Amino acid sequence: MINKKPLILVTNDDGINAPGIRALIEVMNTLGDVCVVAPDSPQSGMGHAITINDALYCNRINISKDEPQEEYSCSGTPVDCVKIAVNEILDRKPDLCVSGINHGSNSSINVIYSGTMSAAVEAGTTGIPSIGFSLLDYSLEANFEASKKIVKTIAEQTLKNGLPNGVVLNVNIPKLNSTEIKGIKVCRQANAYWQEKFDKRTNPLGRDYYWLSGEFVNQDKGQDTDEWALENGYVSIVPVQYDLTAHHAIKEINSWELQ
Amino acid sequence: MINKKPLILVTNDDGINAPGIRALIEVMNTLGDVCVVAPDSPQSGMGHAITINDALYCNRINISKDEPQEEYSCSGTPVDCVKIAVNEILDRKPDLCVSGINHGSNSSINVIYSGTMSAAVEAGTTGIPSIGFSLLDYSLEANFEASKKIVKTIAEQTLKNGLPNGVVLNVNIPKLNSTEIKGIKVCRQANAYWQEKFDKRTNPLGRDYYWLSGEFVNQDKGQDTDEWALENGYVSIVPVQYDLTAHHAIKEINSWELQ
Repeated sequence: MINKKPLILVTNDDGINAPGIRALIEVMNTLGDVCVVAPDSPQSGMGHAITINDALYCNRINISKDEPQEEYSCSGTPVDCVKIAVNEILDRKPDLCVSGINHGSNSSINVIYSGTMSAAVEAGTTGIPSIGFSLLDYSLEANFEASKKIVKTIAEQTLKNGLPNGVVLNVNIPKLNSTEIKGIKVCRQANAYWQEKFDKRTNPLGRDYYWLSGEFVNQDKGQDTDEWALENGYVSIVPVQYDLTAHHAIKEINSWELQ
Repeated sequence: MINKKPLILVTNDDGINAPGIRALIEVMNTLGDVCVVAPDSPQSGMGHAITINDALYCNRINISKDEPQEEYSCSGTPVDCVKIAVNEILDRKPDLCVSGINHGSNSSINVIYSGTMSAAVEAGTTGIPSIGFSLLDYSLEANFEASKKIVKTIAEQTLKNGLPNGVVLNVNIPKLNSTEIKGIKVCRQANAYWQEKFDKRTNPLGRDYYWLSGEFVNQDKGQDTDEWALENGYVSIVPVQYDLTAHHAIKEINSWELQ
C-alpha cells in the first residue's frame, strides 16, 4: 500500500462547530487521514434516531484552510451522518470512527440516550472499530486539553489492537486537569436511571406545556462501574455491545406457558 | 387492595391513531386498567431520542366514549411519552408497559433504531415490566387479528411471572394468520445490519439532497435467532437488556497499554 495512514471518520452530536469535535479532529490529524461528517446543528439526546421521513442534506465545508481534514455538514442525526459518510462520502471503509468529544457525560444509562454513542454504535454495526468520547463538562467553554492526551492514547491502542467483534468503546473523561487524572479504568456500565421531573408551564395562549428535567440516580455501589471510576478521578472505558440479547434470561422465559 | 386490576401503560411510535396501537389497547382492556400516552404523530426510527431542547405538549383526548381507557396525546418521542406518563400522568407505577403493535419488524439490529422498543426499554429502566410488540407488515392497513391472541398470551404471562431485572421483551410477529403461526420461540437477536443506499436527488433550487434507504443483511445462520424464527413461521421473543456492557471484552481491553 502506498498510503499506510489510517482513514478516520469523525462525528459527534453537539454539531460540527462544537469545541469538542474541534479538539477531536486536532488529535485525529496526528494519527491519520481525517474525514469529518457531523450534524449541522446540536443533536444531543437523539439516541439512535435516523431520518426516514425527510430528505437529508450533506455539504462539504471549509472551516479552516490550514487544516488537512475534509469536512461535511449534514442536516441529519449523528447516526445519519455515519450512514451517509460510510455509504456516500468515503471511498473505502474507515479504519476508525470516533465520535465526540461530547460536552457532558455519557456514562452509565446515558449511553442509551446519547447521539455521540449511537453514532459510534452505528459505525460498529458495519464493522468499523469505533469509540465515543465524552467529557464530564456540559459547558460550551469546556476545556479539552487534558482530554486530548487520553483520546490519543485510546485511539492509538484501538488502531493497534482492533476491537472484539460487536464491541465499541464508551469513554468518559472526568472534569480534571492532566495531573489530577489518576488513570484509565475498563469498567462495566453502572446500574442507574433518571428520575424525571417535569416543569409544567403555561404558554401565552393558555396552553400547558412541559420541560423535561431530571435527576440522575445511581443505585449501583460496585467499584467496577464507570460511575465509580469517574467519581474517583479515573477515565472510564466501557466496552459496549449492540447485541442487546439478555442471554441469561432466555431459559427463564422459555419456562413460561407460551403455547 | 380494593382494585386488583393491573395498571397498564400503552404507547407506540406510529402515533396514537395508528391501527396497531388500537389493537393493542383492545387487548389490554381485557387485562387491566389502561392508560395510553402516545405520540401525536408518527415517530418511527426515533430510537431512544428524548426532547431536551423543546417544550412538550401532552393533552388528554377522547377517541371513543365507549372505551374504558384514558388517552393522552403527546408532542414528543416515544421515550418522552413514557417519561411523562410515569412522572406526570399516572399516580402509581404501572404493572406493565406495552408498546406497539408496531407496523413493521423490530427484529434483530432494528431494535436499536426502534422507537417502539426504546419506549419499552425506557419503562424497563424505571422497573416496569415492559414489552414491545411488532408485526412484520409495514402497511397502515395491516391485519392485527392474529396478533391479538399472541399479545394477550405474552402480556398475561408477563403479568403473572414478572421479568428478570434489567430485561424487557422484544416480540415480533410474522405476517401470517392464526392457523399458520407455528408457535412462540424465545430467541437471541440475529447478527445483522443495514447496507444503506442513498438516493441522491436535486431539489428545485439545484441543491443536492438524499433519501436514506437500505437493504437488510442477515449474516447470521443460527437457528436460535429471531430472524430464523420469523422466517419459519414462529413469533420471536428476544429478552433485551439495557446494560450494554460487553462483559466478555473487559479482560481483553484491560490488556492494552493504557497508562
